[in-house]
Amino acid sequence: MLFGKGQITQLPEVLARYGKNVLMVYGGGSIKKSGIYDTVHELLNDFTITELSGVEPNPHHTTVQRGADLCKKNKIDVILAVGGGSVIDCSKVVAAAANYKGEAWDLVIHPERIDKVLPIVTILTLAATGSEMNKGAVITNTDSQLKLGTGNWNMIPKTSILDPTYLYTLPAIQTAAGAADIMSHVIEGYFKKTDDAFVQDRFAEGILQTVLKYTPIALENPTDYPARANLMWASSMALNGLLGAGKEGAWSCHPIEHELSAYYDVTHGIGLAILTPRWMRYALNETTVDKFCDYARNVWHMEDNANKFELANEAIDATENFFREIGIPMSLKEVGINDSKFEVMAEKAVRYGGLANSYVPLDKQAVLKILNACR
Amino acid sequence: MLFGKGQITQLPEVLARYGKNVLMVYGGGSIKKSGIYDTVHELLNDFTITELSGVEPNPHHTTVQRGADLCKKNKIDVILAVGGGSVIDCSKVVAAAANYKGEAWDLVIHPERIDKVLPIVTILTLAATGSEMNKGAVITNTDSQLKLGTGNWNMIPKTSILDPTYLYTLPAIQTAAGAADIMSHVIEGYFKKTDDAFVQDRFAEGILQTVLKYTPIALENPTDYPARANLMWASSMALNGLLGAGKEGAWSCHPIEHELSAYYDVTHGIGLAILTPRWMRYALNETTVDKFCDYARNVWHMEDNANKFELANEAIDATENFFREIGIPMSLKEVGINDSKFEVMAEKAVRYGGLANSYVPLDKQAVLKILNACR
Repeated sequence: MLFGKGQITQLPEVLARYGKNVLMVYGGGSIKKSGIYDTVHELLNDFTITELSGVEPNPHHTTVQRGADLCKKNKIDVILAVGGGSVIDCSKVVAAAANYKGEAWDLVIHPERIDKVLPIVTILTLAATGSEMNKGAVITNTDSQLKLGTGNWNMIPKTSILDPTYLYTLPAIQTAAGAADIMSHVIEGYFKKTDDAFVQDRFAEGILQTVLKYTPIALENPTDYPARANLMWASSMALNGLLGAGKEGAWSCHPIEHELSAYYDVTHGIGLAILTPRWMRYALNETTVDKFCDYARNVWHMEDNANKFELANEAIDATENFFREIGIPMSLKEVGINDSKFEVMAEKAVRYGGLANSYVPLDKQAVLKILNACR
Repeated sequence: MLFGKGQITQLPEVLARYGKNVLMVYGGGSIKKSGIYDTVHELLNDFTITELSGVEPNPHHTTVQRGADLCKKNKIDVILAVGGGSVIDCSKVVAAAANYKGEAWDLVIHPERIDKVLPIVTILTLAATGSEMNKGAVITNTDSQLKLGTGNWNMIPKTSILDPTYLYTLPAIQTAAGAADIMSHVIEGYFKKTDDAFVQDRFAEGILQTVLKYTPIALENPTDYPARANLMWASSMALNGLLGAGKEGAWSCHPIEHELSAYYDVTHGIGLAILTPRWMRYALNETTVDKFCDYARNVWHMEDNANKFELANEAIDATENFFREIGIPMSLKEVGINDSKFEVMAEKAVRYGGLANSYVPLDKQAVLKILNACR
C-alpha cells in the first residue's frame, strides 16, 4: 500500500519488478479528464502499454474475456488497474484468465480452477469496494444475468497506490455511494453470529465513525485532504480481512444487492444504502437488539435508553437519514427499479448468497419483505 | 496467522514447506510444564529437531550467536520459535545471522546488513510483544549493556500459531505485564505528532478498550477463552504496523524502558507500566491536552469536563490505577531499581531512542524527571 500524495512516482519501479509489458485497465475515461491517464503514460514511457478500456461499473464477463485475450495475444507481464472496484475486480479475473485455457467466466463460477495469476498493480480512484487490498472480485454475466463473486489469494494486488488527491474530482454521488459501500462492508461483518469478537467489533465501529465523520466533510469540501485520506484508508481496511477475521456466517445485504444490479444498472453502493436500513429493521429482534444497541452507542454515540428497541430503532433511523443526507436516493423507485423482478431476485439471492447462514437467516419471503420495504 | 484452539495440528504441514531440519527455540522450560513441548515433538516425529533453549526474558546477544552457530552447523531449514516475544525476537536474529558471516550482534547495530533470513514459524505462548506478526526484534548485549532494536521484512514470521488456550497457565504477573506491553505499544503510536490519523486512532482505542476489559477477566478466570483470545489478538494487532501506519515520530517510553532492562532484570511490560503514567504527566500540556481528552473519553468512557486538564489527569490516574489493580508493582523501588544509573540511562535513552523526535520532545533532563517520578 503506497499511501499518500504523489506516490504514483513509484509506479515505474513497482511495475518493472514484473516486466515491461503492461495491460492498463480502466473505465469510462474519467482518468483522462483527471490527468491520471497522461501521468501514467508519461511515467511509463519506456514500457509497452496495451489498453483495456470501457470497463463497466458492474464489469461484464465479456469485458473480462476481452482482457484475457489481450493478455494472451500480447504476452502481458503485469496488469495495471486504474480505477475503482469495478476496474480492479475486472483486472483480477483478467489476470487469472490470462493463464487459463477455457472461458474467463468459468473462473467466476469455479474459483477453485484459478491457479496462476498475472501480477496486478492498482491505482485507486474511488474509495469504496476495498478491492485494492483483497482477493475478491465480482463479475456480471450479461447473458445469464448472474452477478457473482470469485476469489483467490493469487489475485490480491501486489501493490496499490492510494493517493487521496485522486478523489478530489469525484462526482458527489460517487463519494456518497462509496461511503455507503464501505459502511455496508463493515455492517455485514459487524452483524454476525460469532460472539466475543471484541477487537474486530471495535475496529468496525472505528471505520463506521470514520465514514460518518468524513463523508459530509468531503462532500462539503471535495479537496479536504484528511477527509479523503481517511475515507480512502477506511475503504481498504473495511474489506481486507481485518474486520471479518474469525467471524462466521454469510453476509445479508450484498447478496440481495447483487440481484438488483444484475438486472438493473444501479450503482452498487446506492443499492446497499437502500437495502441496509430496511434489512436492519427486519433483523431487529429480541436476540439481536443488544448488538443494535452497541451500534447505537459506539457508532452513533447515542445516550443509553431503558427501552432497548427504542435505542436500536433510533440508530437504524439515523443510518437511513445519514444516507439520505449525503444525497443517496433512498428508494428503489427513485433508481428506476420496480417490483416486477422481486420474485426471481429473492429466489436467486437466497440460492447464491447463502442467506440461510446470515445473521438473521433469510428465506425468500424475508428477502421479498425487505425488497418491498425498499420500494 | 493460524488462530484458535487446536491450530497446532497444522504445524507439520506448515514447517514441511521449508524443510525437515528444524531449530526449535524456547525459553526457560515453561513449555515443558504446559505440555506444548511434548506436543511439538509428537507432531514432528519425522522431522530432525535441534534445540536452542534457555532464551532469556531479554535475549542476550550470546544466545543469538549460539543459535546462529547451531543453524550453520546443522544446516537448519526453518526455525520454530515456541514462546513469547523474547524467544521470537531471538529467533529472528538467529535466522538472519544463520546467513551472515560476521557476529550476530552486527545485525542488531547494522540492520542494513540483514539479507537472507531463514524462515521462521512461531507458536505464541504469551500475549504481549506482537513480535509474532512483525519484522522487529530487540536484543541485549550483555557486554556493552546495550538493548537495541533491529528489523527487516525478511524476519517477519511466515506463520504464527495463536492458540488462546496456551495462555491459560500463565502466571498472573505475566498476563498483567503482557497487557501493559500491549497497551504501551498502542499508546506510543496514539500519542504522535501526526494529525488526522482518525482510522488508526479509533483502532488504537479499540485495542486499549480490549485490554481494559479482558485483562481483569483473564486474571480472575485464567481459562476464560474469549478473554484470552481477545488479548492474544490484541497483542498482534497492536504492533503489526496497523496502528502506526502513516504516523511519524519516535516512541517515548520504550527507549527509556530499554535502558531499565539493559541494566536491571526487569520485565519489559512492568517497566513500561511504571513509566507510562509518569511520562503522560510529563507530556500533558496546552498542546497535547486535547489528545489526552480523546483518550479519556474514547478509551475510559469518562464524562466530558469543562476543565480539560482535569479530564486528562483523571485518565492518566486511571491508567496508573489500572496497572496497579492488575498487580503490577508501580515503582522502580519495588522492582529493585534505584537512582544510581539514572544519569547514564537518561543519556542513552536520548541518544539511541531518538527522543528529540517523540510526541513531546525529551532531552536528558526530561528523562531524568520522568525516571525520578517513577522511583
